[in-house]
Amino acid sequence: MTFAATVLTLYPEMFPGPLGVSLAGRALREGTWAMDAVQIRDFAIDRHKTVDDTPAGGGAGMVLRVDVLSKAIDHAREAHPGCPVIAMTPRGKPLTQERVRELAEGPGVIVMCGRFEGFDERIFAGREVEEVSVGDIVLSGGECAALMLLDACIRLLPGVMGAASSGHEESFENGLLEYPHYTRPAEWEGRTIPEVLRSGDHAKIAAWRKSQSEIDTRLRRPDLWERHIGVRVQSASGAQREVQDD
Amino acid sequence: MTFAATVLTLYPEMFPGPLGVSLAGRALREGTWAMDAVQIRDFAIDRHKTVDDTPAGGGAGMVLRVDVLSKAIDHAREAHPGCPVIAMTPRGKPLTQERVRELAEGPGVIVMCGRFEGFDERIFAGREVEEVSVGDIVLSGGECAALMLLDACIRLLPGVMGAASSGHEESFENGLLEYPHYTRPAEWEGRTIPEVLRSGDHAKIAAWRKSQSEIDTRLRRPDLWERHIGVRVQSASGAQREVQDD
Repeated sequence: MTFAATVLTLYPEMFPGPLGVSLAGRALREGTWAMDAVQIRDFAIDRHKTVDDTPAGGGAGMVLRVDVLSKAIDHAREAHPGCPVIAMTPRGKPLTQERVRELAEGPGVIVMCGRFEGFDERIFAGREVEEVSVGDIVLSGGECAALMLLDACIRLLPGVMGAASSGHEESFENGLLEYPHYTRPAEWEGRTIPEVLRSGDHAKIAAWRKSQSEIDTRLRRPDLWERHIGVRVQSASGAQREVQDD
Repeated sequence: MTFAATVLTLYPEMFPGPLGVSLAGRALREGTWAMDAVQIRDFAIDRHKTVDDTPAGGGAGMVLRVDVLSKAIDHAREAHPGCPVIAMTPRGKPLTQERVRELAEGPGVIVMCGRFEGFDERIFAGREVEEVSVGDIVLSGGECAALMLLDACIRLLPGVMGAASSGHEESFENGLLEYPHYTRPAEWEGRTIPEVLRSGDHAKIAAWRKSQSEIDTRLRRPDLWERHIGVRVQSASGAQREVQDD
């Protein structure tokens, strides 16, 4: 089945953009996924094609009108029933690999991109829109974030990645950062590949990678580490003992 | 001064992509920023133009070679001295609006995009590369993340945004999520704009927005809220009392 990527945007010409190249581009041409970039302005209700208005209560910038957005969403939902509607917004829930995997297993996704100061808040409850954030930064619009979300989904679609195994053993798939990678040359500017990786001892290598993954997560991302520990503590008493032994 | 955006990638045709459109596109044409997409493959050292090799210790996927990457970085640094080198990687430090602002105030940025399983780890210490993450998700490559990083920087460059004031009072600028926005129509499908926003009482509106911003951060992003509280506790004893009163 073709994964239906629908984007509601004021700049449909930005799509597929980078997703028209490389693995995602080939998958698009092969019909593994389809791109439908919908111009929000087409759903304006006045003859000036207005999509935004000044913020209620005053302040800088412009806000996307709820009556226009709702029409664009209704149009997309009719064409793609069953697809969740996601708005890219810094006020949203941080996107996780778990959510990406769920989306990739579904029929597709309708992504709404903001511009200016953002969306009229009423659209979220009024149309059951999921608010999603991709990092604590402010963008000029949701388009680059939408490209990232779609890229993350598309690479998980069946047949897109060469080796199926590449989809696992990666950062976040087990709640941890991935272990570091090395390749030839064995020595570069005096820096060598860790000895264990050249030992040929697969059990030892697996243990080193697991330990490295844990150490790096603990040092670099204490937030992820605490969540990981929390899950393990809750999941089994054996795991709990292991944590306490640390 | 022109902000120099340099991207090291296996897909230079992806750039400027969406950044060639809208406000960023106009700023590019006006010389506010410049885009230099560098093909990593041009720095391969064999006649097959190899950029990757199998992971030391075994496993799926391919790893970008440190000797090739280092040459690409050296080339970019020579052309753009003083620009930090940033690698987009899920193992990196989460990008913040504070770091974006620092980058936007500097001469530019050199962004390195991974593909396959990632970079040979030795490149980071060997070339002083900053590892940056844009969300706990796995992408097919760093390109969409690089576009997002650049978009966040470019909108902060002088003259890019219409109203200079739009650069502040936004999500994360004060460590909180932004308050919700509303605009006309005053009623839509039975949903109205909060009364206070139609009061014309600017002090009341400001107080409502501040409170809304705090409530939403606390509910939606307890991680941000805790950091916010932490900063306030450290910054003044008056603030500390306020926190305890909560």
